[in-house]
Amino acid sequence: MGRFAFIVAYDGTRYQGFQIQRQGPTIQGELEAALHRLTGEVPRVVGAGRTDTGVHALGQVAACDLITPWDPADLERAMNAVLPPDIAVRQVAMVQAGFHPRFSARSRTYRYRIWNAPARLPTERLYSLHVPRPLDVAAMNSASQVLVGEHDFATFGSPVGRSRSTVRVLYRAAWSQDGPRIWFDIEANAFLRRMVRGLVGTLLLVGRQQRSPDIVAELLATRDRSRSGPSAPGHGLCLMQVTYPADLWVNSYLFDKPGT
Amino acid sequence: MGRFAFIVAYDGTRYQGFQIQRQGPTIQGELEAALHRLTGEVPRVVGAGRTDTGVHALGQVAACDLITPWDPADLERAMNAVLPPDIAVRQVAMVQAGFHPRFSARSRTYRYRIWNAPARLPTERLYSLHVPRPLDVAAMNSASQVLVGEHDFATFGSPVGRSRSTVRVLYRAAWSQDGPRIWFDIEANAFLRRMVRGLVGTLLLVGRQQRSPDIVAELLATRDRSRSGPSAPGHGLCLMQVTYPADLWVNSYLFDKPGT
Repeated sequence: MGRFAFIVAYDGTRYQGFQIQRQGPTIQGELEAALHRLTGEVPRVVGAGRTDTGVHALGQVAACDLITPWDPADLERAMNAVLPPDIAVRQVAMVQAGFHPRFSARSRTYRYRIWNAPARLPTERLYSLHVPRPLDVAAMNSASQVLVGEHDFATFGSPVGRSRSTVRVLYRAAWSQDGPRIWFDIEANAFLRRMVRGLVGTLLLVGRQQRSPDIVAELLATRDRSRSGPSAPGHGLCLMQVTYPADLWVNSYLFDKPGT
Repeated sequence: MGRFAFIVAYDGTRYQGFQIQRQGPTIQGELEAALHRLTGEVPRVVGAGRTDTGVHALGQVAACDLITPWDPADLERAMNAVLPPDIAVRQVAMVQAGFHPRFSARSRTYRYRIWNAPARLPTERLYSLHVPRPLDVAAMNSASQVLVGEHDFATFGSPVGRSRSTVRVLYRAAWSQDGPRIWFDIEANAFLRRMVRGLVGTLLLVGRQQRSPDIVAELLATRDRSRSGPSAPGHGLCLMQVTYPADLWVNSYLFDKPGT
């Protein structure tokens, strides 16, 4: 019996998020079905983050216990042979029994992608939000800086699981631009539910010059969920990376470049 | 009455190529339907290149004559409002009556994309060929250089339309790499049918070290279509750009960066 950790990538377009729901396909459901098919066991797969409907991942982390002994590289190949084409396992590792994808995680990084040009781009439609009018990226960057550090983010998201705390530590929040492509990289110890999409929705008001950059600090201070701006759509969001303390798991997946 | 030129981008996944076929949806069919819906006319749309089933485009060029007077920017917005989400018009311009998307074109540029990593990447599956084993990009580049210049490409493709000539002038053929992403940019005055996919199929044999780089020159010299290597799948291919003599049309669409 051993605990296996997986780096999982998926196109979330046709899924009801990571976590199993009463209805509709989920990433967890597909991973459990694949492992059942390969081992005959009925494993319970746990993920680092419960991504919402339509949200993508390049570096989701999941884990489960298996009785069947597997070479990690063999298990990776076998899983990719049975998983649907919109889900893949990028890496499999054996980890110690104390490893938990969610509770052991030290930080999560999300990227929100925007296609900022008058015309839609069909090959981007599933992975980027289309914003036809020019965005003020400098203003969005300036507005994002007040988010870095330890704050109560209650305005922008709801607590997850049993904990009622809405305090999180944000390590990085930066907008980048390359022609019509604009993306927002945000890393924190953990995120509230809908927090990234809530922040992006408010920052887009700043980018469209409908609000001044000060709005972010003002909203943050209210700690009032009903004051949050519009939530940005899920399909622009991607879970890029989850990191762990070095003694638990140093995964060899490298954070992909902007083009990814 | 005026002639309109369009820069068209599409995700070719669910289309039977550009040109109208007896069965199945095509890009030409969707463009004509959109223009009919907007104008009530029954316009005939002509494209610069008849991309195959599943092939994508970022810079296809099409044209048609319309009796209805339209401001080009208005026509662009109106078309994008009625076209399906996997087709978009990036630019509309009025051009002189002598402009023909195919016959006036001076060069075409295609890009073939490869995802070169052991595991598939779901968000690349529609736009890149997955090659699990490492490719020798230097060998593929070296093998590609004999293609540049005027050659009879009969081994690698079939003539298009009435002309029987299989001679084409190749301006550029270069492989680039950024981590697991590998792409092949190829520009010529014109291409034979299936020529890019035929060349990529043979160059992949070189990249896998199943053939020496000399194979390309050897096959080219045979001018025998039956000697061509395997054809690379259509979904990795994208029509990036079509250029015209400056007095006919200088379009403002800029060739997108590698990430595109």
